[in-house]
Amino acid sequence: MNYNFSEKLKNMQPSAIREIFKSLTDPSIIAFAAGNPAPESFPIEAIAKISDNILKTDPVKALQYGITEGYPKLRELVAKRLDTKFGIGRPDDMTIIVSGGQQGIELTCKTLCNEGDTVLCENPSFIGSLNSFRSNGAVVKGIPMNEDGIDTALLEEALKNDPKVKLLYLIPTFQNPTGRTMSLKTRCEVYELAVRYGVIILEDNPYGELRFEGKELPTLKSMDTEGIVVYCGSFSKVLSSGMRIGFLCANEKLMQKIVVAKQGEDVHTPMLPQMICADYIEQYDLDAHIKSIQDLYRHKCGIMLEALDRYMPDCVKYTRPEGGLFLWCTLPEGIELNEFVQAALKRKVAVVPGTAFNCDTEAGSDAFRVTYATPTEEQITEGIKILGELVTEFMKG
Amino acid sequence: MNYNFSEKLKNMQPSAIREIFKSLTDPSIIAFAAGNPAPESFPIEAIAKISDNILKTDPVKALQYGITEGYPKLRELVAKRLDTKFGIGRPDDMTIIVSGGQQGIELTCKTLCNEGDTVLCENPSFIGSLNSFRSNGAVVKGIPMNEDGIDTALLEEALKNDPKVKLLYLIPTFQNPTGRTMSLKTRCEVYELAVRYGVIILEDNPYGELRFEGKELPTLKSMDTEGIVVYCGSFSKVLSSGMRIGFLCANEKLMQKIVVAKQGEDVHTPMLPQMICADYIEQYDLDAHIKSIQDLYRHKCGIMLEALDRYMPDCVKYTRPEGGLFLWCTLPEGIELNEFVQAALKRKVAVVPGTAFNCDTEAGSDAFRVTYATPTEEQITEGIKILGELVTEFMKG
Repeated sequence: MNYNFSEKLKNMQPSAIREIFKSLTDPSIIAFAAGNPAPESFPIEAIAKISDNILKTDPVKALQYGITEGYPKLRELVAKRLDTKFGIGRPDDMTIIVSGGQQGIELTCKTLCNEGDTVLCENPSFIGSLNSFRSNGAVVKGIPMNEDGIDTALLEEALKNDPKVKLLYLIPTFQNPTGRTMSLKTRCEVYELAVRYGVIILEDNPYGELRFEGKELPTLKSMDTEGIVVYCGSFSKVLSSGMRIGFLCANEKLMQKIVVAKQGEDVHTPMLPQMICADYIEQYDLDAHIKSIQDLYRHKCGIMLEALDRYMPDCVKYTRPEGGLFLWCTLPEGIELNEFVQAALKRKVAVVPGTAFNCDTEAGSDAFRVTYATPTEEQITEGIKILGELVTEFMKG
Repeated sequence: MNYNFSEKLKNMQPSAIREIFKSLTDPSIIAFAAGNPAPESFPIEAIAKISDNILKTDPVKALQYGITEGYPKLRELVAKRLDTKFGIGRPDDMTIIVSGGQQGIELTCKTLCNEGDTVLCENPSFIGSLNSFRSNGAVVKGIPMNEDGIDTALLEEALKNDPKVKLLYLIPTFQNPTGRTMSLKTRCEVYELAVRYGVIILEDNPYGELRFEGKELPTLKSMDTEGIVVYCGSFSKVLSSGMRIGFLCANEKLMQKIVVAKQGEDVHTPMLPQMICADYIEQYDLDAHIKSIQDLYRHKCGIMLEALDRYMPDCVKYTRPEGGLFLWCTLPEGIELNEFVQAALKRKVAVVPGTAFNCDTEAGSDAFRVTYATPTEEQITEGIKILGELVTEFMKG
């Protein structure tokens, strides 16, 4: 039987990261390729205690259907935290719970974009989101980045030349995959451009709270006087990724429609994980827990930068992130990226080739992404040493 | 700010059931309108014990990212159960875990239908699925039912006249909302028609295991020699609806593409609920538990039928389901459905007007859906008595 797939999915393949991720079940491989948070960052004992208590004192609520917008207590706690800590949320905004940040991104695209509409984003960008846009029939166009984030001159050109742009997808803080953070000046310019060209901004901020160096910057949503920013956050990097709890905050007219779309996708996000998040926020000190994750990643990122400074030939350039999970390494001319990545895998070091994050699937790349979150300290040093030696070998031809 | 919604979602409103469901938070209302399983049907103590054990012995697996196809152990257990108990699954089939049956339905449509393609279904049918098809831009066309299920003569006519039919959505067993079950003869005819016209069948079977009277019938998927049936099942009615665990079984070529679509929607289904389901199947007797749910619903359905036989004027017709959660009551000519439903709500009895399940949103209906699953035995008798009195009052004008 030959199946007749929809046009939007016909040419789509499983994401490269997911496939590499699957190969990572081999424990002898140093997993620089994963996008997983450090397992040490999960508050395991607290979650076990909370979950046990919920299933003993309020089991029917945890096991019965809930409402699409999310568990009311969690919605309130998240909205309050966004407001008091980050200045996010206006009187006509609404916060809902989604099944991980990924669902928030997908629903926003589905609600706003017709097939053939354009989504602009940073290039490179998070492959999971790009594929989600494509699976909705949207056309993804990448705008090059500079040190300050997305290149605003090129962004304006794209907005001017393409009347089908509906959505501007951005990860302003500790961007995936580059680890870069958009400067305040660029944030202001980007917001102005979106207002001027009547485009909705989808601000994806899964790593925002993982800052371990430098100065906090305001989110685009906190500047949103016009109601054009959809803010997407997540508990995946601060409590548990496997629980799949994210949230969206935007103008309620837009959110009501997103709720209709969510209803059709999964009715509601599972109750037990929602209740665990709510009780954690209420009964524990989430800010203190996040501070411990920042300390952990500052330490691990430091070890990786130290190893890079020590073992990597000067011809390799890499970012020095102030937070998040990722570093972006650029190879010198003359090294063929895919050969390099394959050779690294043979020596049991898995990295993600930059091509996987390219908006234009045909385009090449000279960079790869590494994470310091999941590997151990010893693996970080050992893995970077191996990559450094490999660069030297490749340079010699 | 006026938002420019996508064409497919622009005219969609929250589903009527969801809105009625929200109003059901008032405990003084007799909830005949809900689609919830009975809270007594959740194996609360077992789930609490299993969950506690997982979070103590294997917490990182429960809290870390998983793979899109689902928790391998649960996939295996589900595939094995489908095979041995229901004869479902061929060598080239594949079973994946989805975030509730709803997601399985949505992903199948997304993977197969372009905007403007037709999905045929029974009329009336489950509103959640119809809205999910619409939110993907598909056109939903309903085929009338008779006592044996979908009218196959009318189905053939629709297949002949509409070259854009991609999907045939069916709930053959204990259909929602009518509670009717498709006869074996109709099942065979429907399968033949789908093969002849090259259409994929999406068999939605959330209630199939809840048979409390009559003889088991084979699923369409168990007859699927040609690989044209996507089978969608769920743990929502047998373990817990709030955990949102469903599964899909179909030819692996089709499933691989559905996995790509799922990746873009929520990366994967939450791990803890998946692990709870797997451990329940492995450590407890799911079949014995399901038998206890059948006993519960046989009893409650019996009470409702008894009350209907006693209190309902003869002019009202109702189905006598052999399983599932729902009864379908047809009012005599002359009673305006919406006035009746509103009057019932005023007397604290909530039912769902049949119009909510109509494929053609403009069409009227003379029937309403009631459930015996969630209300108590006393509420069932009391609620039906009130509805009976109301019919008499309406008949008198």
